[in-house]
Amino acid sequence: MELDTEELLAQLSGDGGPSGATDPPVGPIRSSAMATGTLLCASLLFLLLQGEICRCQRLTIPLRRPSDCGVQHFFDISSFTCVKCGPNQTRSKSGTSCVCQTGFRVLSSNGPSITCQQCPVSKPGVTRDGYGCLRCPGGLSDDGTCQCPAGSILVERDLNGNLLDEGRCEACNEVDPAFSIPDSTGSRCTRCQESFINTSLSCTCGPANMLVSPYANEGRVTAMSQTQQLVLLPYSLLSCQALGNMCVMNMYSQSVASDACGLYNTIFRATAPLGSAHAISYWRSNLPWLYYGDQPGLASRTLRTEALPTGFSFKGGNKNTDISFTAAVYNAKGDFLRWESVGKGNLQLCPDTDIRLDAAYTFGTAYKQSCILSLSSIITDFPEPLFYDIFMDMSQSSSNNGERTLMPVPVQNLNLKLNGQFVNQASNMNNWYLTRRVFLVDALSGREGMLSAMPKVVRVATTIKISFQLVPNTMKGEVYPPLISISYSDILVSNIKTQTIPVSFSVEYKMDQSEAQVKTDIALGVLGGVSVLYALLKTASWKRRIASPLIDLTTIMKFLLFYAGDLANVFFVITVGTGLYWLIFYKAQQFVSVLLPLPDQEEKFITYVACAFALKTVQFLHKLINQLSVDIFFIDWERPRGKAIKTIDGAGEARNIPSPVSIWRTYFVANEWNEIQTIRKINPTFQVVAALFFLEVVGFSNLASRDPSSALHRDPEDYKSPWSLILRYGVTTAMWLVIGLLQVLFFTVFHERFVEDKIRQFVDLCSISNISVLLLSHRCFGYYIHGRSVHGHADTNMEEMNSNLKREAENLCGQRGLLPNTDIQTFQISITNKLRQQYDRILEPLTRRNAPSRLIDASANPFEQNTKAYHTMNKFLSAFIDHAHRDLDYIVKDKLAFERLVGMEFMEAIDRSIFYNDESHSFSDVLYYGNEATLLIFDTLFFCIVDLCSQNFVLAAVLTYLQQQVFQLIRNIFGRRNLASKTLVDKRFLI
Amino acid sequence: MELDTEELLAQLSGDGGPSGATDPPVGPIRSSAMATGTLLCASLLFLLLQGEICRCQRLTIPLRRPSDCGVQHFFDISSFTCVKCGPNQTRSKSGTSCVCQTGFRVLSSNGPSITCQQCPVSKPGVTRDGYGCLRCPGGLSDDGTCQCPAGSILVERDLNGNLLDEGRCEACNEVDPAFSIPDSTGSRCTRCQESFINTSLSCTCGPANMLVSPYANEGRVTAMSQTQQLVLLPYSLLSCQALGNMCVMNMYSQSVASDACGLYNTIFRATAPLGSAHAISYWRSNLPWLYYGDQPGLASRTLRTEALPTGFSFKGGNKNTDISFTAAVYNAKGDFLRWESVGKGNLQLCPDTDIRLDAAYTFGTAYKQSCILSLSSIITDFPEPLFYDIFMDMSQSSSNNGERTLMPVPVQNLNLKLNGQFVNQASNMNNWYLTRRVFLVDALSGREGMLSAMPKVVRVATTIKISFQLVPNTMKGEVYPPLISISYSDILVSNIKTQTIPVSFSVEYKMDQSEAQVKTDIALGVLGGVSVLYALLKTASWKRRIASPLIDLTTIMKFLLFYAGDLANVFFVITVGTGLYWLIFYKAQQFVSVLLPLPDQEEKFITYVACAFALKTVQFLHKLINQLSVDIFFIDWERPRGKAIKTIDGAGEARNIPSPVSIWRTYFVANEWNEIQTIRKINPTFQVVAALFFLEVVGFSNLASRDPSSALHRDPEDYKSPWSLILRYGVTTAMWLVIGLLQVLFFTVFHERFVEDKIRQFVDLCSISNISVLLLSHRCFGYYIHGRSVHGHADTNMEEMNSNLKREAENLCGQRGLLPNTDIQTFQISITNKLRQQYDRILEPLTRRNAPSRLIDASANPFEQNTKAYHTMNKFLSAFIDHAHRDLDYIVKDKLAFERLVGMEFMEAIDRSIFYNDESHSFSDVLYYGNEATLLIFDTLFFCIVDLCSQNFVLAAVLTYLQQQVFQLIRNIFGRRNLASKTLVDKRFLI
Repeated sequence: MELDTEELLAQLSGDGGPSGATDPPVGPIRSSAMATGTLLCASLLFLLLQGEICRCQRLTIPLRRPSDCGVQHFFDISSFTCVKCGPNQTRSKSGTSCVCQTGFRVLSSNGPSITCQQCPVSKPGVTRDGYGCLRCPGGLSDDGTCQCPAGSILVERDLNGNLLDEGRCEACNEVDPAFSIPDSTGSRCTRCQESFINTSLSCTCGPANMLVSPYANEGRVTAMSQTQQLVLLPYSLLSCQALGNMCVMNMYSQSVASDACGLYNTIFRATAPLGSAHAISYWRSNLPWLYYGDQPGLASRTLRTEALPTGFSFKGGNKNTDISFTAAVYNAKGDFLRWESVGKGNLQLCPDTDIRLDAAYTFGTAYKQSCILSLSSIITDFPEPLFYDIFMDMSQSSSNNGERTLMPVPVQNLNLKLNGQFVNQASNMNNWYLTRRVFLVDALSGREGMLSAMPKVVRVATTIKISFQLVPNTMKGEVYPPLISISYSDILVSNIKTQTIPVSFSVEYKMDQSEAQVKTDIALGVLGGVSVLYALLKTASWKRRIASPLIDLTTIMKFLLFYAGDLANVFFVITVGTGLYWLIFYKAQQFVSVLLPLPDQEEKFITYVACAFALKTVQFLHKLINQLSVDIFFIDWERPRGKAIKTIDGAGEARNIPSPVSIWRTYFVANEWNEIQTIRKINPTFQVVAALFFLEVVGFSNLASRDPSSALHRDPEDYKSPWSLILRYGVTTAMWLVIGLLQVLFFTVFHERFVEDKIRQFVDLCSISNISVLLLSHRCFGYYIHGRSVHGHADTNMEEMNSNLKREAENLCGQRGLLPNTDIQTFQISITNKLRQQYDRILEPLTRRNAPSRLIDASANPFEQNTKAYHTMNKFLSAFIDHAHRDLDYIVKDKLAFERLVGMEFMEAIDRSIFYNDESHSFSDVLYYGNEATLLIFDTLFFCIVDLCSQNFVLAAVLTYLQQQVFQLIRNIFGRRNLASKTLVDKRFLI
Repeated sequence: MELDTEELLAQLSGDGGPSGATDPPVGPIRSSAMATGTLLCASLLFLLLQGEICRCQRLTIPLRRPSDCGVQHFFDISSFTCVKCGPNQTRSKSGTSCVCQTGFRVLSSNGPSITCQQCPVSKPGVTRDGYGCLRCPGGLSDDGTCQCPAGSILVERDLNGNLLDEGRCEACNEVDPAFSIPDSTGSRCTRCQESFINTSLSCTCGPANMLVSPYANEGRVTAMSQTQQLVLLPYSLLSCQALGNMCVMNMYSQSVASDACGLYNTIFRATAPLGSAHAISYWRSNLPWLYYGDQPGLASRTLRTEALPTGFSFKGGNKNTDISFTAAVYNAKGDFLRWESVGKGNLQLCPDTDIRLDAAYTFGTAYKQSCILSLSSIITDFPEPLFYDIFMDMSQSSSNNGERTLMPVPVQNLNLKLNGQFVNQASNMNNWYLTRRVFLVDALSGREGMLSAMPKVVRVATTIKISFQLVPNTMKGEVYPPLISISYSDILVSNIKTQTIPVSFSVEYKMDQSEAQVKTDIALGVLGGVSVLYALLKTASWKRRIASPLIDLTTIMKFLLFYAGDLANVFFVITVGTGLYWLIFYKAQQFVSVLLPLPDQEEKFITYVACAFALKTVQFLHKLINQLSVDIFFIDWERPRGKAIKTIDGAGEARNIPSPVSIWRTYFVANEWNEIQTIRKINPTFQVVAALFFLEVVGFSNLASRDPSSALHRDPEDYKSPWSLILRYGVTTAMWLVIGLLQVLFFTVFHERFVEDKIRQFVDLCSISNISVLLLSHRCFGYYIHGRSVHGHADTNMEEMNSNLKREAENLCGQRGLLPNTDIQTFQISITNKLRQQYDRILEPLTRRNAPSRLIDASANPFEQNTKAYHTMNKFLSAFIDHAHRDLDYIVKDKLAFERLVGMEFMEAIDRSIFYNDESHSFSDVLYYGNEATLLIFDTLFFCIVDLCSQNFVLAAVLTYLQQQVFQLIRNIFGRRNLASKTLVDKRFLI
């Protein structure tokens, strides 16, 4: 394509156009160019031309629509401009060309341009093709053509096509055998509609008949031939369909006998002799099937009596999850249009990708799609309603000689009124009145006057729900026939641009959950009863351990606290069991035998989880508080080894007094004890991180979707079913418990054996440092770690320490146990009341410090009191362990297996305290370490509760981590404070 | 609606239907019911009837389509069955009714049922309406009607509609002035097409003209009148459009002069005198505008010369992010159909929700949508192509008198061939040949033979990309005209059911990134240079500290290691700066002045991040290894306080020897030192969790999407733009650094002051326990913590410890500093080579143990050697600190500010060692604590690298946590090992 300079110059010299003037830089350049020499001029001109080219291409053009052009202009489809028509012309109906004015004929036409010539006065009529003039037998019509009376045709040409000088009006012969009327153009006589002839043997409506024009859309009338104007005859297939459609648009409701549904019912009754189609009594031959019967209970018989012939299965060779609906589609006029496979948005009004739309028809995938549509798009997309008779396609199933069979799907129209009541909104299925035919949008009935008018009201199927019910106790995935529930809303059209309509489409799968509920209730009852007994036992054990026989308010409180813990476990077990049950049985089943509880059926479950969490919290706090108030004392066995020369400042005189025993070993042991307060059998942060990793990154969370897929990875393009809270809980707890157990296993089997075991290290440290630990978790019950050094002394230099360690490694010294020749260093102890009283008496001066100030002995130096109490206690307890007190003796024995099991001592420590051998280091019960189960379950429930509320695993992980840190901090701070106050070790050494 | 019993009984007596027989339980009940008494019989009958009802409703029906019924049957639209037609009948074309056989006329019709009668032999022809018989003037056609020769019409009725006995064939008069030919039904003569008359003054094509029927679709032909058959006339608007469309379907490529594009160009040249539309020289009047010119460089002038009149702005009152395209739509025939606003899927082939589809037209939102479409749906949805002339709607912008103006949008058709080359696939814009008109799917050209045939090949616009380019240095959001790039693919139709086509649609926004790139390069160069200097300085400092003047390979290695660290920081600063720059300037701008780099422009940035991470890793490992090999010794100042009686085992005799100094204080201090190895100025796990929380839960990650929105919460229904890696990096590092800084602030300002400061605690502990710490991080450089107790003794009992602490709290004793009356306890030390040699000599027996076995003195007991070395070292270092060695003395001085800044000592320790006061506890440099910056940046980069690879914050968080744990474990295990070996403290006490 060339652009020659002439053309450009021609453009340039022409008018600059609307935008040429707006470009300031060009103007000055242009004028200056004119003023200077030729060479410069030429080059500038070149630039200018280029500028012109560029400007041309960027030029914007005004937007013109065909309707923008006036009657004198037509729309040029090539340049999008309005071009004036020639003389005596006016624009055509479409606006894209010109036609001659009334009274003018086309003289010549050459593409878009025509020439018009006025018809002579003698021949004032223009022919219908616009090219000729002729005399008219009658008057002229508005468009300048000849007019003929009704029932007559206008003849403009003879049979050979020669134009007549004068048009002729010829009356059509309406009687037998001609039966003719003018055709739609009024230029020929053609045979009239058969039903007129049948009823009256003429082309007029018989006196016994009523002329009905069910479909008077002008646009349509031209498309369908005039002869198709319908007359109501009982068995006309098309008109029966049209009548049925009207009844459907009227919500199947009959208010007077002569409305559409009334007429339908009248005809239905009258045509009983015709018999029914397919032996279905509600489906009368030649009539559309609209209603099921209205006997009470018929709906439940229809929906719940027999299962579909084939079952659904999620997996395996017989995998069958395809639901296939087929619909017979009619237009409002009653024409059968086609069989249409339901899917890709013919029931789903909300737009979405095909993959996501199709997901609605996979068995077991809970589907919910909702959106807000604009009224304008609804009216544009559905100018007239389509009617669907929906069937379920049984072809995959039967496979008998490959024939496809269909099963009619009943519809529950929630807007149906029977005797003035919305019977289908009743909760009792027996009152329902099922129907068949549905439509999505009716923007037709609401048009007043003309069919091209904007509808005053639009009726839209705002909620469509397809529900499947599983046959109870099926093992083959049998379901009852599905039910389509539709609810319509009427929208009064006031502002079509801004009005919107929320619509939704859902598919749900139900089964009878009452059996599962009963089983859960039974389990809850039984386990709840057991937990009462267990809590009673614990309370009894506690009473014995605090050596109090009275049943007072505290006892009841304690009982309730124990009960809370046990009940929390019961709830936890039941909820985890339920979650796992659904997870395993729903996701892993081959033939469908269970379906998930619906969201509103999950409420009870959520309540159970909440109970479990609340009660677990009570138990956890109870344990925490108990741990923070435990009594502890470090017994130092070390005795002075020689005399140290010490200068007494007061007298300035040197005296020999025993060299002091260093307190640093006690500091060391206390410091270590402080450090193991919150160690656990698992790494709690790792627990959170690992759970998050598996749920979010590996994709275990995808198991919680309400669909049969057990794939961990889902394509982001796929439809995502809503979460099932039960499955989410099941997956989460399973994940959490499995990771927890693996961690416990790793730490106990591998880490504590081969890397480090903090608890055993502590016991070792006691031995090496010659320090015993006495722990009293209850008034008269506690633990004892025997730490007396086998070497006699530990407060020594590196040389001796190393040699001691070496000797012990080489088994050259005695054993560490409390009893001679035993290894057992850890004991549970039941102490006598007398011992405890003595213990309390020694600590009395210290505890009194915490009492109100008036009781404090102001003169007493707290430091001195501390040290004195420490020494007294150390001496007293060493003596007790050494059997030095005759009246405060103890025996060592094994605990009975049953005692261990029940967690209660059968023998009361009355005369003598009892030391029970305890190789399992159960003193860790006063640490986090010994309460791993409670902590793990508490964390699990915390994580789950946050997740159930927010459905966000990341948030749950973050909050669980923070919760762990906060409680650990509390435990550490207050544990340290308790340790400092009970062992009299300065807080500064507990770092 | 009632169901009466008769009806049911009638049904029952009728045939049970295909499914009635398949139900086994009914059979036996029925027979047994018959056998027993009447009462039972009646009740069972009732049950039976009920069963019948239920069964009826569930009954499936076979699927029948109209096409399934044979020629003898019609499809009953009410019952969906095939019903046999009456005698002499055959089914109609649509299949839903019956018509009379050839040679039979309709006698009567009553709804669907008609009666047919054979025409008498005398009148063998059936009228076209099927109701009459007549004689034929000529022969009979296949459908039994009379046949007339071409150019003649068949007359069956007279003008009044009376049926003639014999049909007449009348020839149409083709000459002036009748100009008539038979109409499409062949029953009337009507005026023929004007173009025939114009060219030949008759109804035949003139000899100088060519008959062209550009659109011969049969389906169409009936819709459009026969007279619209087109003849090519130069200025016929419609035919020019049709020709243009053919050229477009031919990819604008001309191979021979007579193909569509060749014809178009011929006409284009020939019609130059007509002038151009809208003063756009490429837009010839009456012709469609297809091409821009083909001068070299025209494309870049068109696309890069002038900006759009209005700028875009993301925020504020002038917010303008709407892009609005309007297209003139034509069908293949050339009809102008409508102005259509581009959006909701007319350029976007992939289905999606409206909200997501509309997101493509928001300025600044990078949009990419791709999917795989099935060929069948493509062919169904696009039976014929639509052609779009696309304009950009400038209405919002100009707002001059409310008129909407349009700007033509150029198209880059990648399949366009010019002189045999795909010029538009060139990277150089100057070679491009821009065009105008586009289509999406052409399933028309590929149909062979008939237009109803299945196409052999389908051409689909598989890739559509709209790109906007920002005007350089604009501050008002000015952009150049957009460009639409389209690439088509031809799909050979082989298996329509399985074939698929991947298609994509994208909108991208570009700006010239070279300036930013240059700036980055400059920054990199400058900072890189500085980092070389800094690394040199560090190497020099290191050489001084190891007291080695030689420049050897190790020195170069060290230099490279230091350089790696510094370079890592440079890369980190530059990448973070870049990330923040884009984040802030892109998201916060009001008028658009910057646009994000495209994914392929991000590669360089990613390389920088990778470099930063790799180099940082090197630095981190280097530091880690240095820390794991640091020399440390605990100097115990405690001296024996008295004589202890000790039994020497060998002689069995008691002797007075000095009571041993307890080693437990050293154990305690070593244990604490071991515990502070990996404490940090932040909580690293909290760091990870908090970053994850803000990114994922609060939603900061949403800032990283390629759209102008800075909202943290996005509706899940909204379109999600792809991530910008740069923004992701920017958000992540900003988040990470801010949280890190806040943590450091919290820990240093609040936690260490009011809760606990582990470093200060350690220094305090040293003082209390009467133990000094000597750390040598380099051969001749290190740190000294002076821990000599102000009380002289620390190895004492609780009483004295408490009173000591009390006295110190009450300021009753001296100050803790090394120099009298000072408080400074921590020092950096430069020691003399001599001192170091002495130090090494003492440790020699121990280090020799690690040497090959033949060098080991087999007789020496390692325990004894240990203890001996310990005591010797203790004595030696105590003496050194006490200035007891004349030749190994030291001085204490302040470090110069510049020395601090540079990190290098200017004075070499030759004669005397130098102790620099160091109140900032810089000994923590050998711990994690003192290297927080390195650790934080390493963690940040680790997190970012994982995220950039996986685009998954959760995974990044999990892996970062694990990384932290692993390195912490390594640091702890090897640090503990190093501590045990260097301080001679048994590992068992480092717990």
